[in-house]
Amino acid sequence: MMMQASDPELMARAMELARRGMFTTMPNPRVGCVIARDGTILGEGWHERAGEAHAETRALADARARGNEPRGATAYVTLEPCNHHARTPPCTDALLAAGIARVVAAMRDPYGPAAHGADRLAAAGVAVDIGLLEDEARELNCGWIKRVETGRPWVRLKVAASLDGRTALGNGKSQWITGQTARADGHRWRARASAILTGIGTVRQDDPQLSVREIETPRQPLRVIVDRYGETPAHARVLGAGDVLVFTATPPRTKWPPHVQTLELKDRHGRIDLVAMMSALGEREVNELHVEAGAKLNGALLAAGLIDELLMYVAPCLLGDPARGMFDLPVAMTKLEDRFPLRVRSIEPVGEDWRILARIASRDH
Amino acid sequence: MMMQASDPELMARAMELARRGMFTTMPNPRVGCVIARDGTILGEGWHERAGEAHAETRALADARARGNEPRGATAYVTLEPCNHHARTPPCTDALLAAGIARVVAAMRDPYGPAAHGADRLAAAGVAVDIGLLEDEARELNCGWIKRVETGRPWVRLKVAASLDGRTALGNGKSQWITGQTARADGHRWRARASAILTGIGTVRQDDPQLSVREIETPRQPLRVIVDRYGETPAHARVLGAGDVLVFTATPPRTKWPPHVQTLELKDRHGRIDLVAMMSALGEREVNELHVEAGAKLNGALLAAGLIDELLMYVAPCLLGDPARGMFDLPVAMTKLEDRFPLRVRSIEPVGEDWRILARIASRDH
Repeated sequence: MMMQASDPELMARAMELARRGMFTTMPNPRVGCVIARDGTILGEGWHERAGEAHAETRALADARARGNEPRGATAYVTLEPCNHHARTPPCTDALLAAGIARVVAAMRDPYGPAAHGADRLAAAGVAVDIGLLEDEARELNCGWIKRVETGRPWVRLKVAASLDGRTALGNGKSQWITGQTARADGHRWRARASAILTGIGTVRQDDPQLSVREIETPRQPLRVIVDRYGETPAHARVLGAGDVLVFTATPPRTKWPPHVQTLELKDRHGRIDLVAMMSALGEREVNELHVEAGAKLNGALLAAGLIDELLMYVAPCLLGDPARGMFDLPVAMTKLEDRFPLRVRSIEPVGEDWRILARIASRDH
Repeated sequence: MMMQASDPELMARAMELARRGMFTTMPNPRVGCVIARDGTILGEGWHERAGEAHAETRALADARARGNEPRGATAYVTLEPCNHHARTPPCTDALLAAGIARVVAAMRDPYGPAAHGADRLAAAGVAVDIGLLEDEARELNCGWIKRVETGRPWVRLKVAASLDGRTALGNGKSQWITGQTARADGHRWRARASAILTGIGTVRQDDPQLSVREIETPRQPLRVIVDRYGETPAHARVLGAGDVLVFTATPPRTKWPPHVQTLELKDRHGRIDLVAMMSALGEREVNELHVEAGAKLNGALLAAGLIDELLMYVAPCLLGDPARGMFDLPVAMTKLEDRFPLRVRSIEPVGEDWRILARIASRDH
């Protein structure tokens, strides 16, 4: 990669632009683009919504609107420019037509049908450098990348607990262990998800809305309920207006409003097939799945190896052992070697509480 | 307080000197002293061991040994100079005799018989300023201060847990949840304690030595066992050479070696009276009590309001609900308002793990 002094700063700006699409681009990736010459920005753009213009097209248009000619300039883009006709024409064509002389991309496009834009640009004589701020670019689109690569969403499990790992009292009381700032922060993570998932136990215990309320957002994620026997009460708040999808393992026992979709996915034990459920959500173009459930569903997902990331809010208090834990595993662990290893990414104060972001590392790899 | 520009730096140096006595001064406080003139250090000293010279005396002697005349100089001391004849003569006398013109002390002496050194110095015409780095000075001697003020030791509970608050598997396996660096760090905290306490359950499960091994130390803390029926096996490693004190609620069922002291303290339920136990340890001049016990004793101490500080090592892993918790409370909590609030002092990486230091705030205050 041939770097120039201003490359990192301009790519960081492209990343910042990409983040503007955080709550809206799904199922598409978040992408930002900066057109610059000799370190001076000529135009900027980002992808906002599926079906609308891509970041590169918008940045080129922005340059021209500002009276800046992009010919011979460099395009900084957080994802390799696409090379296929989808709802919009290929960005490689737009960049070539504009006479862009160099393209710096943070990462290659993992999506087969759109890939190889860089090769096409290089073949046409454009200088191409790939890999600048790649880790950051992959983080930004962890969900989209995982879905494109595996057909399943990135699963982020949110949990609020005391310092001794307790999410609720023995009698189920859990509102509120963490403070207002942490709750608003949690809604920011809800807003970036394609879907929010919970279990019938939590629906019964807390009657949550599973909507984004504490922060501004132009859209609400799909709400997903794991409900083996289809017993979610028809008056449950989670079934309110908006898209709802209920997974069951039997025909539902309850009659729900027509906007509630159901999907029966039974495994050989007569329970909901959680792996098939994730694939079904992938087929529905869910990039990031946000889980807010109880210990039982959390434990089942953990044991099935289906959790990618832990978003944990820790309140500075102790609740003691009779209170409920975070992961009720289906089978008790008997050897410490079987522990689920984590890679802690950050520990930060959020109001009175602490937010811990950690990756769940597979024990098999 | 009349401050000079070099005061904070010189007091910080005195604090650093005081810390050299971290593992040795008990039951006395850790104290450091710097003699300086116009910001230049003439002599330094610290208290090392009960019965030996105090910090002030050593600093004056050091100044003279270096050929520096302390007359007219300033003495920086982390604790108000003592004003009584104990095993050594009063430091106020030594400072007056040396012609010290100004004394800067971090905190007043809370110990009645030794107090009022500052008043005596001021009456003799010495300029006295008190309160510089007071918080730090109080931290350094939290144990000694608490014992002097309440008759009971400062209780620091050490626990190693997974991120979901689990200290051992359901079958008791707990060695090792945290890594080598965290364990060595834990031994540093053991070394500064006057005594290390555990329960009969932990003795049976882990057969710990409760000694300082991972780091250099010139002394071993007293080992204390909470053993209601006096059932600690005579061959238990914790009863090895060195001072051991066993608290029971009945005459012991086991015959122990003669170096093992026992104390029977029964409450009205026939259990060990934990409050009386703390007072008994205070009478034995235990400043900092380091607890490494299981969930049951931890829970009983927490419920009784006897824990001052939590020293928690968190390993980046999950063990799940069937595993053991940190605090098995005698009575389950039914209202979130009854939670035990914490004040987090620091969260720091220690090798692969994290160390969380937190104060347990009383719900009554």
